[in-house]
Amino acid sequence: MKFSSKVKKCALSPMRKFHPYAVAAKEAGKRIYHLNIGQPDIETPPQYFEAVRNFQLPVLAYAESPGMPVLIKAIQKYYGNLGMHFAEGDILITTGGSEALQIVFNCILDDGDEVIIPEPFYPNYNTMVNTCGAVIHPVCTSPEDGYHYASRAKIEAAINERTRAIVCTNPGNPTGNVLTPEEMRMMVDIAKEHGLFIIGDEAYREFVYAGEPLQSLGEFEDAAENVVVIDTVSKRFSACGARIGCIISRNRELMGEAIKYCQARLSVATLDQVASAALYDVGPEYFAAVREEYKRRRDTVVAKLKDIPGVICECPRGAFYIMAALPVDSADEFQKWLLTDFDDNGDTVMFAPGESFYATPGMGVNEIRIAYVLKQKDLERAMDLLALGIEAYNKR
Amino acid sequence: MKFSSKVKKCALSPMRKFHPYAVAAKEAGKRIYHLNIGQPDIETPPQYFEAVRNFQLPVLAYAESPGMPVLIKAIQKYYGNLGMHFAEGDILITTGGSEALQIVFNCILDDGDEVIIPEPFYPNYNTMVNTCGAVIHPVCTSPEDGYHYASRAKIEAAINERTRAIVCTNPGNPTGNVLTPEEMRMMVDIAKEHGLFIIGDEAYREFVYAGEPLQSLGEFEDAAENVVVIDTVSKRFSACGARIGCIISRNRELMGEAIKYCQARLSVATLDQVASAALYDVGPEYFAAVREEYKRRRDTVVAKLKDIPGVICECPRGAFYIMAALPVDSADEFQKWLLTDFDDNGDTVMFAPGESFYATPGMGVNEIRIAYVLKQKDLERAMDLLALGIEAYNKR
Repeated sequence: MKFSSKVKKCALSPMRKFHPYAVAAKEAGKRIYHLNIGQPDIETPPQYFEAVRNFQLPVLAYAESPGMPVLIKAIQKYYGNLGMHFAEGDILITTGGSEALQIVFNCILDDGDEVIIPEPFYPNYNTMVNTCGAVIHPVCTSPEDGYHYASRAKIEAAINERTRAIVCTNPGNPTGNVLTPEEMRMMVDIAKEHGLFIIGDEAYREFVYAGEPLQSLGEFEDAAENVVVIDTVSKRFSACGARIGCIISRNRELMGEAIKYCQARLSVATLDQVASAALYDVGPEYFAAVREEYKRRRDTVVAKLKDIPGVICECPRGAFYIMAALPVDSADEFQKWLLTDFDDNGDTVMFAPGESFYATPGMGVNEIRIAYVLKQKDLERAMDLLALGIEAYNKR
Repeated sequence: MKFSSKVKKCALSPMRKFHPYAVAAKEAGKRIYHLNIGQPDIETPPQYFEAVRNFQLPVLAYAESPGMPVLIKAIQKYYGNLGMHFAEGDILITTGGSEALQIVFNCILDDGDEVIIPEPFYPNYNTMVNTCGAVIHPVCTSPEDGYHYASRAKIEAAINERTRAIVCTNPGNPTGNVLTPEEMRMMVDIAKEHGLFIIGDEAYREFVYAGEPLQSLGEFEDAAENVVVIDTVSKRFSACGARIGCIISRNRELMGEAIKYCQARLSVATLDQVASAALYDVGPEYFAAVREEYKRRRDTVVAKLKDIPGVICECPRGAFYIMAALPVDSADEFQKWLLTDFDDNGDTVMFAPGESFYATPGMGVNEIRIAYVLKQKDLERAMDLLALGIEAYNKR
């Protein structure tokens, strides 16, 4: 049987290859501290479950293809509080930020087209772009420069006649990089000047730690045709399993194409939309507490990393990830070894090796991504295990 | 800004074009009987809402990318009761049957490839196939022959070197056509002989009215490489808003490609999976009662249609749709006129005009699809309105 050449180009999740080793380690009685996945341990606000319990309609019917008005209104209000005003037609509810990205890429990409994405980047962008027949044109950054990508020269050097869009994951996954307002303005200007879409994947918007105001590419009303914001309740409300996201854009032609996809898949889950609308009732104290918790974790991880000789990292300004270069030959080999050959009192640790976050071959070989999604005590222990592991690995 | 040539080829839902007329009719005080949409009015089993209320985990986390084991096990058991045995790896949970179809088409289709689908067919197949760069190769049927498509000569005449799959919507939407066991065997044999996938969209499996055993292409274990079953809880349990479906196939290479898509979109909504698993706890009396209700409605619609002079239709054996040819010049014009110029004591009626169910231009112009999803009394009134409407329309 023949398969699509596009899907053949895609790979399984790179995280998956360590799964058998992790299973074996657990079977051997080891305890694994997981710094490898971005699943927060923060409790989902009770508003979600209350809304679900209060749902009283006897028939669980299809919702409207563009999304339920109650949720669209909640999102409009949330952005209104941040000083951004979107019409109802500027918002399409999707099954997570993932479907939002898939729909947007499918609407704007043809075979051979290119999307500029600073690397390291979220690996699922690969499948999303490649299944459209397009390719990611990476903009290279490095741990030495703090993974800084907002340089006009760097971005413009990557633009060619096949470029259709620039993706800004802001705050960044896996780097924790946060654009300054001036950098955002510049990125938007580049998109305007070259007639490109600029897609802001802003899943981690609330997770910034310097007291700065929350940001969005949606602020740039002068670039209404260019800007697309991808949003989700997943991280904001620790509701990853809700699978509720949205596409936000003032580009009506784009939204007119996107609605074709929305209609073809009929609707997004009804209960999850109702419950996600209720999430937007949480007060600012919720965000303040979550932000404080993650900031404390970030500071712990950074302090512990700085104490490990040979580690290169900068203190990330946002999201709940940190990317670092380790003094090891291969983070991949090191991770495997941590699962097969290492333990400290029966404990070991998992992170995400860096290579899979890069499109350029050979990049990120000695880098790792740490997701600081564990409670303080576990996080400290996990970082100590990392330090002990590096020392033992290099002494083999 | 440039958009994908593939999405540009797709159209908005053809049902949408009557929406403004329906709004105007309602504003003018008319009551509209909706026979145009496949949203059942049957109550969702309480098991769904109970499972949702009983969910006690504090964090609504991502589910497993292939689907939650509790739901996969429930589906395995359901098929086991029908005499079909599937391994855990033969089932991938999806966001509705829609995502299941999208993933399968994306896995098997390249630009210029063809999918054989008997027409009239479910219009969303158009967007799903066209966004893959492929085209639907229709196999023509007509109201005069009861929309019968299972003819070896007809199907084989449509096969060429670009053909990748045959889609059997069984029971059929919009026709209500149900394949006999012999016809299923023949369709599967054609797929085997020509090295094609045969995709059974079996959303309406339970809705058959002659007391026959429930059927599935999944029975044909000798065609493990060819058969793909698309399933969903939407119609089976009147849970369209759950958006829970699945891909079922013993073709491990296909499932290996499909999992790439599943991983890229992370997971399907957690609560809806837990609750859908609980739906499979309903007993056979649930299905018997629902089947009885729809059978009564079908018989009402058919009897009323037979009484209208000039209508051509056969009694459908399954699903909850009937396709019929009306004695009007254009079902499209007639529908518009029913909304703008007709009423009987303030009442009018909507159906789905037939043209959009065909790929061949000019086909289905005087046909309509009726979804018998209204309660008996409303259904009778709706059918009387249709008869009165035809008479008045042809007397203009």
